[in-house]
Amino acid sequence: MRGRFLSTLRPQLPHPKQLPTSGTYPLGFRVASANAGLKKKADALDMALVVSDTPAAVGAVFTRNAFAAAPVTVARRRLQETPYVRAVLVNAGCANACTGDRGIADAEAALASTEAALSIPARSSLMLSTGVIGVPLKMDKINSGIDALSSSLDSSHSSWANVAHAIMTTDTFAKLRSAEFKNTRVGSYRFAGWAKGAGMIHPNMATMLAGIFTDAAVSSKCLNAAVSFAVERSFNAISVDGDTSTNDSLIVLANGAAKTKMIDDVNSDDFIEFRDNLTSFAAELASLVVRDGEGATKFLDIQVENARTFEEAKAVAVSIAKSPLVKTAMFGQDANWGRIVCAVGYSGVDIDPTKVNLRMETPQTKEAVHLFKDGAPFQVFDQNDKDRAKRILAGEDIVIRVDLGLGSAKAQMYTCDLSFDYVKINIDYT
Amino acid sequence: MRGRFLSTLRPQLPHPKQLPTSGTYPLGFRVASANAGLKKKADALDMALVVSDTPAAVGAVFTRNAFAAAPVTVARRRLQETPYVRAVLVNAGCANACTGDRGIADAEAALASTEAALSIPARSSLMLSTGVIGVPLKMDKINSGIDALSSSLDSSHSSWANVAHAIMTTDTFAKLRSAEFKNTRVGSYRFAGWAKGAGMIHPNMATMLAGIFTDAAVSSKCLNAAVSFAVERSFNAISVDGDTSTNDSLIVLANGAAKTKMIDDVNSDDFIEFRDNLTSFAAELASLVVRDGEGATKFLDIQVENARTFEEAKAVAVSIAKSPLVKTAMFGQDANWGRIVCAVGYSGVDIDPTKVNLRMETPQTKEAVHLFKDGAPFQVFDQNDKDRAKRILAGEDIVIRVDLGLGSAKAQMYTCDLSFDYVKINIDYT
Repeated sequence: MRGRFLSTLRPQLPHPKQLPTSGTYPLGFRVASANAGLKKKADALDMALVVSDTPAAVGAVFTRNAFAAAPVTVARRRLQETPYVRAVLVNAGCANACTGDRGIADAEAALASTEAALSIPARSSLMLSTGVIGVPLKMDKINSGIDALSSSLDSSHSSWANVAHAIMTTDTFAKLRSAEFKNTRVGSYRFAGWAKGAGMIHPNMATMLAGIFTDAAVSSKCLNAAVSFAVERSFNAISVDGDTSTNDSLIVLANGAAKTKMIDDVNSDDFIEFRDNLTSFAAELASLVVRDGEGATKFLDIQVENARTFEEAKAVAVSIAKSPLVKTAMFGQDANWGRIVCAVGYSGVDIDPTKVNLRMETPQTKEAVHLFKDGAPFQVFDQNDKDRAKRILAGEDIVIRVDLGLGSAKAQMYTCDLSFDYVKINIDYT
Repeated sequence: MRGRFLSTLRPQLPHPKQLPTSGTYPLGFRVASANAGLKKKADALDMALVVSDTPAAVGAVFTRNAFAAAPVTVARRRLQETPYVRAVLVNAGCANACTGDRGIADAEAALASTEAALSIPARSSLMLSTGVIGVPLKMDKINSGIDALSSSLDSSHSSWANVAHAIMTTDTFAKLRSAEFKNTRVGSYRFAGWAKGAGMIHPNMATMLAGIFTDAAVSSKCLNAAVSFAVERSFNAISVDGDTSTNDSLIVLANGAAKTKMIDDVNSDDFIEFRDNLTSFAAELASLVVRDGEGATKFLDIQVENARTFEEAKAVAVSIAKSPLVKTAMFGQDANWGRIVCAVGYSGVDIDPTKVNLRMETPQTKEAVHLFKDGAPFQVFDQNDKDRAKRILAGEDIVIRVDLGLGSAKAQMYTCDLSFDYVKINIDYT
């Protein structure tokens, strides 16, 4: 990211949780949503479809969970055959996970129906599912939904917004973004993306889905390289409770409809710029998933700097982001440097304790408190420092900045606090 | 552990949290406790001393945290010089962590004072500290405490019980056990042990300490081998919140005062028996630490069976034990097999989903429910199964048994649920 942190690219909305009222969407994509009766709330939107007018290069990252859901298995198989797709079908309400051979057959059948309805080549579509685990898809409802979806495709803002609504399960707000990037060499291109998650609120609910669509012209090889880079700095840089589900998926399509010059060299400036734009865009979507974390009252931006390598910086950031003690302290608005330092210390990274510095900051006002300096507590005893820490911790957004003093690499994690409501939401008295 | 799970050796008390009213203590050890005014509650016991009449072999395991506290650094240095010690000094109320060179000097000075007061050789003692991080030891109080300790040593049950009280910080009950093991070949020997922890309740409080003392005659090499084995199956097999502190320490002394035949061959049956007895004893102490987990209402015994290796079984058990989603489900008495299966799936172990089985059991009544069979939900739809699961989950002790179907290795983790009180205790409104 060439020294620039992702959060500087946040779009200008009154609050990040707000759904945009307009957008600039990539050319050559049409979308639709439908109510197929798959959710408990029977009249809610629960299916969505994104279609590219031409074959689109695809980059995808799926859950590493050994119990990968059927649609994930099907997508992996199809992407081994071809790096191009025409359509992405999504359903909420049923994860089609732990459903064995029947689940695979159901996902294949749904995609075949979609391809027939759209008159696109066989095996040119992918499926994403989210919802209850261990229950098969209701195929009659799915097929009715596919009919409704394929006959109502368009490229309007309201249709994109409805897709973001349709994929919600226990989300409290719909997550949609779009952006245009101007490049004088290759030409302008656009991104649109939606996401759902994170956390598994109801028993057996599966988690994180995201789709990003661009009209840039990008070779399959370049798109996959960009997606790998971006996901480590976005969807793999968020933690709500550390659990990863059977269905977690990110799919990125690039259809070239903007008629931009093809980006096909991973060493070119145009590739680097595309990769960084994709990363910023994905990080913004990922941050929305964290802001919708179960019971979250704080958005924590953990920035680890001056590590030897990105991997070491990331390991320290993950250690802090996953600590229940750090997360409860943030909920309690307690400037508990000891818990953060402990999490740095048990990250497994070979650190030099005497070089570690820790600051907490408010991103908006740039107010900061330097809690730990060169291995010892620092601004923690004076009342003015305590008052400043209190103001910083009262805000919704808090930056936890750790300087390891070992090199020049940096990494970032987004997480949220651990609140009473997290427990309340997850106990699910039956 | 030769197929035997540790919990079968639990002592016969009305409830495990109860302090024993008598004990069978190892010969050749004298103990004392004192009130030095180090805790907030100024009249509480806060220092303790255990002295062996003769040099004792020592095996120790310390925190891997890069911010290891000063007493840990001092102990590591001393144990590189000699594998024998005469005394262990303990204080609660101040962790002597993040205290730099001064902290090291203070710990060394406290041990020198102890050695002088006891007339034992220089550098023949070790120190354990627990309490607030980032604040130096109050050496005048420590020195007064050492005077009081060294003049009140004895081997009575009440003195051992007071040691267990003196090391408490935020613990809700004192943790003390003793046991005698009869061996017809080497002769009978005894164990006594105390522990404190886990979790860091107050801001910057450090965590887990344990000491185990035996009058068996064991070579230094054999003792260290036994301690390494035991700790992986006891204190490294517990998880309350996954955080490890600056001060976590286990020290085991063997002084040979029982005049048993020296155990000095790691391939002998006598060694194996000693190692397994130590493991059972340590696991019992470790289970008490879990039962005192912050806000804990359930004791969860996670048993992973039929793995390829112990390490793989342990990795799966740790993954389940650390999942906040599993832990909140247990607090909510929700038989949420999906969350457990997810945690198995993201453990990083190469599993075969179609061979995974999951059961929940009540250890007392042996009632069981088979929730997941060969990769699919099983006893989760029928009302009788649901009722049985409900009864099992209503109990305080719950066994979560996972069969991987890949080999014959097994591992166990003890953990507790994640409750409202965990959050309440840890937010620490300031």
